[in-house]
Amino acid sequence: MNQLMQKSPSMRVFNQLESEVRSYCRSFTTVFEKAQNARLWDSGGREYIDFFAGAGAVNYGHNNLMFKQRLIDYLHDDGITHSLDMATTAKETFLTRFKEHILEPRKLDYKVMFPGPTGTNAVESAMKLARKVTGRVQIICFTNAFHGMSLGSLAATGNQFKRSGAGVPLPYTTFMPYDGYFGDKVDTAAYLEKLLDDPGSGVELPAAVLLETLQGEGGLNSASEEWLRQIARICRERKILLIVDDVQMGCGRTGTFFSFEQAGIVPDIVCLSKSIGGFGLPMALTLIKPVHDIWSPGEHNGTFRGNNLGFVAATAALDYWVGGQFEPELASKADKIQATLERIQANYPEHHIEIRGKGLIQGLAFRDAEQASRLCAAAFNRGLIMETSGPRDEVAKLMPPLTIEPELLDEGLAHLEEAMKELSL
Amino acid sequence: MNQLMQKSPSMRVFNQLESEVRSYCRSFTTVFEKAQNARLWDSGGREYIDFFAGAGAVNYGHNNLMFKQRLIDYLHDDGITHSLDMATTAKETFLTRFKEHILEPRKLDYKVMFPGPTGTNAVESAMKLARKVTGRVQIICFTNAFHGMSLGSLAATGNQFKRSGAGVPLPYTTFMPYDGYFGDKVDTAAYLEKLLDDPGSGVELPAAVLLETLQGEGGLNSASEEWLRQIARICRERKILLIVDDVQMGCGRTGTFFSFEQAGIVPDIVCLSKSIGGFGLPMALTLIKPVHDIWSPGEHNGTFRGNNLGFVAATAALDYWVGGQFEPELASKADKIQATLERIQANYPEHHIEIRGKGLIQGLAFRDAEQASRLCAAAFNRGLIMETSGPRDEVAKLMPPLTIEPELLDEGLAHLEEAMKELSL
Amino acid sequence: MNQLMQKSPSMRVFNQLESEVRSYCRSFTTVFEKAQNARLWDSGGREYIDFFAGAGAVNYGHNNLMFKQRLIDYLHDDGITHSLDMATTAKETFLTRFKEHILEPRKLDYKVMFPGPTGTNAVESAMKLARKVTGRVQIICFTNAFHGMSLGSLAATGNQFKRSGAGVPLPYTTFMPYDGYFGDKVDTAAYLEKLLDDPGSGVELPAAVLLETLQGEGGLNSASEEWLRQIARICRERKILLIVDDVQMGCGRTGTFFSFEQAGIVPDIVCLSKSIGGFGLPMALTLIKPVHDIWSPGEHNGTFRGNNLGFVAATAALDYWVGGQFEPELASKADKIQATLERIQANYPEHHIEIRGKGLIQGLAFRDAEQASRLCAAAFNRGLIMETSGPRDEVAKLMPPLTIEPELLDEGLAHLEEAMKELSL
Amino acid sequence: MNQLMQKSPSMRVFNQLESEVRSYCRSFTTVFEKAQNARLWDSGGREYIDFFAGAGAVNYGHNNLMFKQRLIDYLHDDGITHSLDMATTAKETFLTRFKEHILEPRKLDYKVMFPGPTGTNAVESAMKLARKVTGRVQIICFTNAFHGMSLGSLAATGNQFKRSGAGVPLPYTTFMPYDGYFGDKVDTAAYLEKLLDDPGSGVELPAAVLLETLQGEGGLNSASEEWLRQIARICRERKILLIVDDVQMGCGRTGTFFSFEQAGIVPDIVCLSKSIGGFGLPMALTLIKPVHDIWSPGEHNGTFRGNNLGFVAATAALDYWVGGQFEPELASKADKIQATLERIQANYPEHHIEIRGKGLIQGLAFRDAEQASRLCAAAFNRGLIMETSGPRDEVAKLMPPLTIEPELLDEGLAHLEEAMKELSL
Repeated sequence: MNQLMQKSPSMRVFNQLESEVRSYCRSFTTVFEKAQNARLWDSGGREYIDFFAGAGAVNYGHNNLMFKQRLIDYLHDDGITHSLDMATTAKETFLTRFKEHILEPRKLDYKVMFPGPTGTNAVESAMKLARKVTGRVQIICFTNAFHGMSLGSLAATGNQFKRSGAGVPLPYTTFMPYDGYFGDKVDTAAYLEKLLDDPGSGVELPAAVLLETLQGEGGLNSASEEWLRQIARICRERKILLIVDDVQMGCGRTGTFFSFEQAGIVPDIVCLSKSIGGFGLPMALTLIKPVHDIWSPGEHNGTFRGNNLGFVAATAALDYWVGGQFEPELASKADKIQATLERIQANYPEHHIEIRGKGLIQGLAFRDAEQASRLCAAAFNRGLIMETSGPRDEVAKLMPPLTIEPELLDEGLAHLEEAMKELSL
Repeated sequence: MNQLMQKSPSMRVFNQLESEVRSYCRSFTTVFEKAQNARLWDSGGREYIDFFAGAGAVNYGHNNLMFKQRLIDYLHDDGITHSLDMATTAKETFLTRFKEHILEPRKLDYKVMFPGPTGTNAVESAMKLARKVTGRVQIICFTNAFHGMSLGSLAATGNQFKRSGAGVPLPYTTFMPYDGYFGDKVDTAAYLEKLLDDPGSGVELPAAVLLETLQGEGGLNSASEEWLRQIARICRERKILLIVDDVQMGCGRTGTFFSFEQAGIVPDIVCLSKSIGGFGLPMALTLIKPVHDIWSPGEHNGTFRGNNLGFVAATAALDYWVGGQFEPELASKADKIQATLERIQANYPEHHIEIRGKGLIQGLAFRDAEQASRLCAAAFNRGLIMETSGPRDEVAKLMPPLTIEPELLDEGLAHLEEAMKELSL
Repeated sequence: MNQLMQKSPSMRVFNQLESEVRSYCRSFTTVFEKAQNARLWDSGGREYIDFFAGAGAVNYGHNNLMFKQRLIDYLHDDGITHSLDMATTAKETFLTRFKEHILEPRKLDYKVMFPGPTGTNAVESAMKLARKVTGRVQIICFTNAFHGMSLGSLAATGNQFKRSGAGVPLPYTTFMPYDGYFGDKVDTAAYLEKLLDDPGSGVELPAAVLLETLQGEGGLNSASEEWLRQIARICRERKILLIVDDVQMGCGRTGTFFSFEQAGIVPDIVCLSKSIGGFGLPMALTLIKPVHDIWSPGEHNGTFRGNNLGFVAATAALDYWVGGQFEPELASKADKIQATLERIQANYPEHHIEIRGKGLIQGLAFRDAEQASRLCAAAFNRGLIMETSGPRDEVAKLMPPLTIEPELLDEGLAHLEEAMKELSL
Repeated sequence: MNQLMQKSPSMRVFNQLESEVRSYCRSFTTVFEKAQNARLWDSGGREYIDFFAGAGAVNYGHNNLMFKQRLIDYLHDDGITHSLDMATTAKETFLTRFKEHILEPRKLDYKVMFPGPTGTNAVESAMKLARKVTGRVQIICFTNAFHGMSLGSLAATGNQFKRSGAGVPLPYTTFMPYDGYFGDKVDTAAYLEKLLDDPGSGVELPAAVLLETLQGEGGLNSASEEWLRQIARICRERKILLIVDDVQMGCGRTGTFFSFEQAGIVPDIVCLSKSIGGFGLPMALTLIKPVHDIWSPGEHNGTFRGNNLGFVAATAALDYWVGGQFEPELASKADKIQATLERIQANYPEHHIEIRGKGLIQGLAFRDAEQASRLCAAAFNRGLIMETSGPRDEVAKLMPPLTIEPELLDEGLAHLEEAMKELSL
């Protein structure tokens, strides 16, 4: 391995010029140069399998060949690239197709807002709008939630390390226990309902409940469909808006386009980003039930709302969801992942592993948190990129591109099993 | 004109599917399709001259021919597009060139942070860091400042309409009068200093002073070089961090790469976005004096920190600043604009016009605010895109791409004079 | 009753001149003139038995004959009445006796702070100090807590009606479920501990846990001794300060001088007010473990810290706690109350009554909240003053002076039973 | 002096048992025992002249002989002492007389609220009500204001030492420069008006402007009558409530019952405390224009709203304001004080003394702040009690009881001149 390290690309420029805030480049200590679907290559020519997928931003793979030529053509033809929130043909096409291919088949009726091209902007806009619609202040969020790093969304993020980075108290959010947080026997939806109905609980009627259906950063905690339906009912009965942050779990990550489809609920507001831009291009959407679309013009804005390359790739990506073949393909890959994880669980009882997540975001939760980091490091040494999550980084997380070739998925899973073996020596 | 309108592209899709929050598309009621440098074309084939430049995001023009091929090549070669904050060759090149072409010639020593690809993310990160460095909470900002729309940066934004969109009180900022705010005779820097030194003023020692050297959204108010130096001194003497938000005024808009160069001050933190991505691609930087770069890894993050197409275009754009020919070119264009504005001012004394701004962001402030909107509407009818700014939208603002062809600049200015004539009929 | 009402003193002056905020005078619609121990007389000469005791402020009865002459003498001798926080002989005597008669016998070591003469001032000072000692911001408080009405203490008060009176979001507190809040099977102390130890819970390490051992305003909810010990342990292990708000439950209300004695815990800070002034005179104390007494001089202050009439009466009142005879007397009265309440509970099963509280603060919780108000109204018609509490005013609360004559207690309880009978007709 | 100190009462009990927060007892290091009008005696029998008057709480002198017997009689007769906010004959009499003797002659129409017996409670209630009436959040307050120490009123207090005692950011207030703050040439009322009318100023339309007409704690800064009228107009035109905190300046301190009478303005809300209780007894009032009295019953409350001894003394104190003889007497004493201060100013030009204040609150502002403390210490050694104020404690403040005997006033002023002489040796 020493030999390998010597040949590795130098991190010198980054160490000298880039801020100490950089993080992933400390785990994946090489300089990446090229990428194609689920494969990455560094500048030394070494190949990697990507089980991280840009934290869910490249669900359709790197440099997806179905989209690439469209982007090149758009550039070549001087298609407008940056348009603020002016109307463009690229946006028009996206809106039309998004309605036709995504909303209508799912019987969803949403107005589409372009809030600035990052997930945190989408969440900030959703929080603002919920407060405006209801005239209330508090947003209910959940233990181990992750919603972003700007002051509004960070207030709804549970992670204490990230919260303390604010340097100020984080206002106007109230944390509630997520599904299963206090064991199987405590119904945390009923607990929330009791607090909301008790005029002495100190918990005010909120503007919104903001949740992820599966907490990616928070350790792959899944909410049950029943719990989601209870939360939706609690919101509906009290005119609380339900906001689903589908930034990471949307765009197919859990097996369907929206993660909440499976529970049969219809949020008032949905936040999308990461893979909505198709090609890893910055883009975000805030979907709003028409009745709640009471924004004044320009009440929320941002310079990069009109990233037309994003619209072009995003439109192309919608094709995956036409024809009904993508979901079964995802299910099949998910099964393969699950089978591997169960085998690992069974083979290493001494690690007290819990399998978490679903669809193409699954992982291994270790009782001894350090093992998760060690596993990811061992995987990286084998050319497999995967990350930890959870409040103590106790979960080793698998989230390959949805489009990963089945053989490459097998290969990556094999690396994982080898890495696990090494860990246990 | 009725005839023209009938031929205009339909806004139907946007009216039906896009949120009510959309704004610029209400002033510029057409569907744009193509763009090249300072020209835009809508889908009906009509041509426009762009005196708005993506609110400062396309300083180097639309689809700049110097960069376009590099982007196409990068895509063609499967260069990695999305990389979170991992190291990539595209980022390595950008960092190296940015140091070599921008920082070193100006004797500036900054660490570079990639905070998420929007201006508001850069400002949020700067506010966080200033609070962390100093252990203090308040940020001093100024009347008519604009710093962004997420909860932290919005708290530093003066505009009441935008502030009230938050739906909650905006915390931890204190507004001070900008240079010249209360007339020429009141030295607002001295006023700030008095408040800071008076232990009974109610104004706490802040973590940072956050300012724009020229307030673009706030009505093209310019701070004098002397005032900037006083503020820098006040900060330095009290270990308050000075943050310059150069998101709109940086990248040459005022005539030099950084807007603060002319005053000879060196901020502790600088926020860049908009045109830093060269091609209108989402990208942002937070520049940090090394001594303040005390972030823990990942203490601020975001999914789209690694927009490598942005790095590629940004690197190419730096070439403009090599060789010393760009600044004189900008000065020459600025003079041309100023001459036109002075002519308008002289020709229409009844409008009590004040000329504001400098470099390639100048404008006409009308006593009767409504005239500014009428002027912009009349300009649009002539195929000239320009916008208002200021707390009452009382300023008609000219900010063409820096790279606009001199003849096209003349043509646009001629349109402006005609529009002004129409206004006064 | 019509006849009685006609003779009642007129409320005209109050209706015309006093603010709409007045409340108790709307339930007890007469004009009181004189009082002696547990008896009140209105200006029409009608006599009342007091089962309210100034909401716990006259535990030693109205115009207690043991103290009255001392006050008259003090006034007669021109004893200093108002002294800010200067040293006075009256304060010196109080401090000496409080140490000797209250602290030392209980092996408690506290510094005594005089924070301004109301309970809310004591709580505000405790919250400030806990934040100063720990450098942390959040205060954990509990569902249905009541701690006061100024902005700091109100933030720790659960009642939504009172909270919304603030007109602003209430900052820097986090509500947790009180003992028993979510049923017998959910250990809310363990839940709190889990949240505190989970770095992703969104619940920050607080400066303090602030609690009442029995929630008087909140509906007479009692914390078990075991729960209190668990909370104390949780605090101790994490260097969180434990603040007991004994404003209403202290001074013997639950049967011992401090309400927390029974659980064997030693809070870091204790708030006392209401009956500490002996005679119903405004006075408050904040007791502070010496190690936490890190105030700078004057860092918290107030004009009426030195209410020397209060010190004189407070000193006299301490005599009750010398000799060991008072506690058994209280226990005997408490038993009498409990026996009556149990009889009522048994006699009226249709009301699904729950008996709450202990010592000389006990009450009847009705399933149908309205019955509690009806019961209190019926009692008042019989000359018995008692009030409701609880988030829905569902508890009819008995809190006579501790010094009530046993026969008068019997008489009052007889009135209560009659009122209950009337209610059920 | 050593000899004197040896004989002085011991501070041992206070040093050992009382919290470090105690402050005045550190400047006035003796144990007070008795008081009569403007004279105090310590337990060693030493006599003092009181130029501090309980920080304005004993304007009518200590143990005022006109009231004392009424209190003794009330106690003797078992008049109800503590009544929460129930109606009592003592309160009825006070309300009636207050209307008759104070409000009606001044053509003022206010509802009377009893908010809890301290100034900070009155201010908290006023802030709440203003927010409720307007539906707005911010309260405008002024540099060097002092309004109290609980979280709401502290947010409106300028003193940084006191503010930082909160341990949390202080919310929802905005500080503006007081009259004269930035020199004679800057009209701070016009500055406020400009900020309020500029939709980009960052200063929101507030619920209220809260001010003292003369800042007692802030250094005896006086607002001009014209400035007060401008502020009143600015408020009136924008439906901002004007709250005058007359806690210290009311009850005759500046020469008239209300301090704002002289400017001819009528605040929407007035806060009174300190001397309103006549005898130094805790009491406070919030006066509310009837149209704003929209409280719900109990929306603000407190245990000691019904301090009937306070009502008795307060009623007696109103007699001073009947007959028109008191104001001229105050004016005469004020002149005497002013003449002395002017003589001192003239005699000690090396101290660059500024005379501040008016009525019976005047003082000497020293360029070298330390001299003010030294002067007060020298005065105390001569048996004269006086305190400093101002953000740097740079003002030596004279505020004797309004009722001080003229000869004793002379004697005290003579002590002051001697102390000043000593200071200058």
